[in-house]
Amino acid sequence: MRNLTLLTDFYELTMMQAYHHAQETTGTGQWAVFDMFYRENPSGNSYAVAAGLAQLIEYVKNIRFEDADIEYLRSTGAFNEPFLAYLRNFRFTGDIYAVPEGTVVFPNEPLVRVSAPLAEGQFIETALLNIINHQSLIATKAARVCWAAKGDRVLEFGLRRAQGPDAGIYGARAAMIGGCHGTSNVLAGQLFDVPVRGTHAHSWIMSFDDELSAFRSYAALYPGACILLVDTYDTLKSGVPNAIKVFEEMKARNIPLSMYGIRLDSGDLAYLSKRARIMLDEAGFTDAMISASSDLDEHLITELKAQGAKITLWGVGTNLITSKENPAFGGVYKMAALSEGGKPWVPKIKISENPAKVTNPGVKKVFRLYDTQTGKMKADLIALADEHLNPMENLTIFDPLATWKRMTLPAKSYTVRELLEPVFKDGVCVYPTLSVNEIRTYAETERDTLWDEHKRLSFPQLMPIDLSQELYNLKQMMIAQARS
Amino acid sequence: MRNLTLLTDFYELTMMQAYHHAQETTGTGQWAVFDMFYRENPSGNSYAVAAGLAQLIEYVKNIRFEDADIEYLRSTGAFNEPFLAYLRNFRFTGDIYAVPEGTVVFPNEPLVRVSAPLAEGQFIETALLNIINHQSLIATKAARVCWAAKGDRVLEFGLRRAQGPDAGIYGARAAMIGGCHGTSNVLAGQLFDVPVRGTHAHSWIMSFDDELSAFRSYAALYPGACILLVDTYDTLKSGVPNAIKVFEEMKARNIPLSMYGIRLDSGDLAYLSKRARIMLDEAGFTDAMISASSDLDEHLITELKAQGAKITLWGVGTNLITSKENPAFGGVYKMAALSEGGKPWVPKIKISENPAKVTNPGVKKVFRLYDTQTGKMKADLIALADEHLNPMENLTIFDPLATWKRMTLPAKSYTVRELLEPVFKDGVCVYPTLSVNEIRTYAETERDTLWDEHKRLSFPQLMPIDLSQELYNLKQMMIAQARS
Repeated sequence: MRNLTLLTDFYELTMMQAYHHAQETTGTGQWAVFDMFYRENPSGNSYAVAAGLAQLIEYVKNIRFEDADIEYLRSTGAFNEPFLAYLRNFRFTGDIYAVPEGTVVFPNEPLVRVSAPLAEGQFIETALLNIINHQSLIATKAARVCWAAKGDRVLEFGLRRAQGPDAGIYGARAAMIGGCHGTSNVLAGQLFDVPVRGTHAHSWIMSFDDELSAFRSYAALYPGACILLVDTYDTLKSGVPNAIKVFEEMKARNIPLSMYGIRLDSGDLAYLSKRARIMLDEAGFTDAMISASSDLDEHLITELKAQGAKITLWGVGTNLITSKENPAFGGVYKMAALSEGGKPWVPKIKISENPAKVTNPGVKKVFRLYDTQTGKMKADLIALADEHLNPMENLTIFDPLATWKRMTLPAKSYTVRELLEPVFKDGVCVYPTLSVNEIRTYAETERDTLWDEHKRLSFPQLMPIDLSQELYNLKQMMIAQARS
Repeated sequence: MRNLTLLTDFYELTMMQAYHHAQETTGTGQWAVFDMFYRENPSGNSYAVAAGLAQLIEYVKNIRFEDADIEYLRSTGAFNEPFLAYLRNFRFTGDIYAVPEGTVVFPNEPLVRVSAPLAEGQFIETALLNIINHQSLIATKAARVCWAAKGDRVLEFGLRRAQGPDAGIYGARAAMIGGCHGTSNVLAGQLFDVPVRGTHAHSWIMSFDDELSAFRSYAALYPGACILLVDTYDTLKSGVPNAIKVFEEMKARNIPLSMYGIRLDSGDLAYLSKRARIMLDEAGFTDAMISASSDLDEHLITELKAQGAKITLWGVGTNLITSKENPAFGGVYKMAALSEGGKPWVPKIKISENPAKVTNPGVKKVFRLYDTQTGKMKADLIALADEHLNPMENLTIFDPLATWKRMTLPAKSYTVRELLEPVFKDGVCVYPTLSVNEIRTYAETERDTLWDEHKRLSFPQLMPIDLSQELYNLKQMMIAQARS
């Protein structure tokens, strides 16, 4: 376990020292509520897949300023001894609520809600954003790629182009949560108990005098997982015929052919896969797999499928592991309420010239509304923490920026679920440890609560994410106050 | 130190087992030379900045399959006991040559050359690419951003949007190598002894009843590094006037104002900075700094400067730490030569339909040619390892894809430097440990060897990266052989 305590922006520490100083001099401590949320879905998606909570939990549990850390901070000259003494015993003692990993989530709703002494809530901002932003980004991208693959298996192959070791390791984890069926990343396989896959590279072929010898040698050693890379010299003239020859030799020697086939890694994947399918079928290898792995993403997979490509196993690398067209998840962490010396929460708002960027004040929760008949999701309602919904009553919801867009859900036509679940209580983790496979299964059922219209890769139908009347009123009042 | 030994693609291990098996059965071991190079500069740049070598060295030194790793590999069912026994004592025993970190580098030339027993050279591929690709990507992006800032200081502020902890940590390191003057990332500051910077966030302001109290409180605690964030409520009507009030109060109390000023984090940075500059100047605070930090990149900085923005300190986050417009450095690792049982190297080539993707065969080195008079770089010449250049003789170089593009460098008009330096010899590291500050200084002198025309952000002048006549001939011969 690495110590990531100093994985923070310097200003978190300068602010903390100031908060600590104020508390020491005034004697009254401030508590704050912070919301982590994002404003725009990555890659033009209509939703995101929340991920990273397990690593956030691990980080929060392990916050410890070691002697070397204190010494380093002292060396910057920015911190006084009382504050450094305070850091020495610093632990997170607050509460954290979060949506479970794998949940489909939407802009502006809290994915994580932190309620803690101000200095503590402030401190965890940077690492929290780093972890949740990264994994939610890749899980969302993976969900798009897997949606495009329409039930075919998708493998995450991006480690060599990931932005450093962690991006590879936790990117592979997030890709599994988003729906991938395996990864090439051995360390991720070990850490998260997920399937690892891969056979050989061009260098394997090049280490032999000819392609056929290379294929034969590979097949002899791995008869049970024999996917041969056919594009080193000439895919249709050399690679596929040589692969067929090797499969015939295996058959002749009664070696059972179960997991076998070819991999295309260059050229026109639609044309080559269709030709290769015919060649394999004509040789009697109708169950030989055709996998592909060349600069794939959700758009290319969609187009290749539309052109009748005969590929059933997709290895997706760079574009997935970096979320190439949109490599940052814009999660932010904003103060929503403050309490002075144990008094009631005072809601806080951050005004912006841009109406969409004005924050939602107060301690909040998220109601998710489902259609009783179909089980599909209808909308999310961001509400104040003490609000209740009664599905035995009609419910009118409205768009907070265009309030004439209204919809009334008749009594009993909808069911209600609260999204935020307790993760830390008084600094103690109360959340279960889930395997990546469990999260992956849950994430799949989560995506099933969306209509296909919400999953379209381009210009999908957007989900209504509204404010409760009470929260809406509070917000309007606070905006009016701030402007006066 | 984390054990990153399993940070590899599964196919490296399946290939290794096969290489190991062949060696055990035939008794003759194969050695291979692999080149790590890239084909296209990121972000339309004319060059890249090599980075990550120190972490590659650390990784190679620490390759150890622990008991738990062996146990995990056994559990996959893909590996036999002789191979697992071999892994238990596996160490890297080969040679590595590389260009020093901070060097300006170009497409197709080897940045790292590995010469090792085939299984070992194969094994380190994935981690090598992961590390060098990531850091070279961010160092190159940082060089672009710092070039746009034209001597102003640039701070790396991206940790919260980095793709996981390592992307933040090593991204900050690479950003420093690329020319940044500091980072917000405290852990990077501790690990690499580079300056960490930052003051406060909007939440600081929001934790007070009003902005003026927040500023006063901050200034009281940090008089020596007092950059006040002025955009929480209204930059020009509230933020800047309140900041001026606090600076006046400090002046009245004879507090020396040295490192002080404001930070803009939203709105039109050109307009706001010009207005703020006038307000600060009129109040007598002509040396107050104006810093900015809102979705900046090299293009926006260039445009803001062209519009006369009065910003002299740039905090660059998401776009830098993810290299947003181009988030992957396409480094590849290709076999260049093979030797059977101690015999001479046999050059290897990978053919492609795309002429630019045909690899350069053989054991190679890179000559860099400089103009004697100006000290500026003229060209790189990729050559075979046993070639020599004599600057006392005329030298004709030519474009390997358009051979009619020729240039003759007269005797004595040029000097020659070999780029690849020994890093490992027989598995032992022979490379010095350099501080990030030393590398950063070297990288600056490296960029100075380029004319400004090569540094232009869009459509820069490209550097000739040619092949020696000998290497060119070998390549043509091997292509002809492969096609016959």
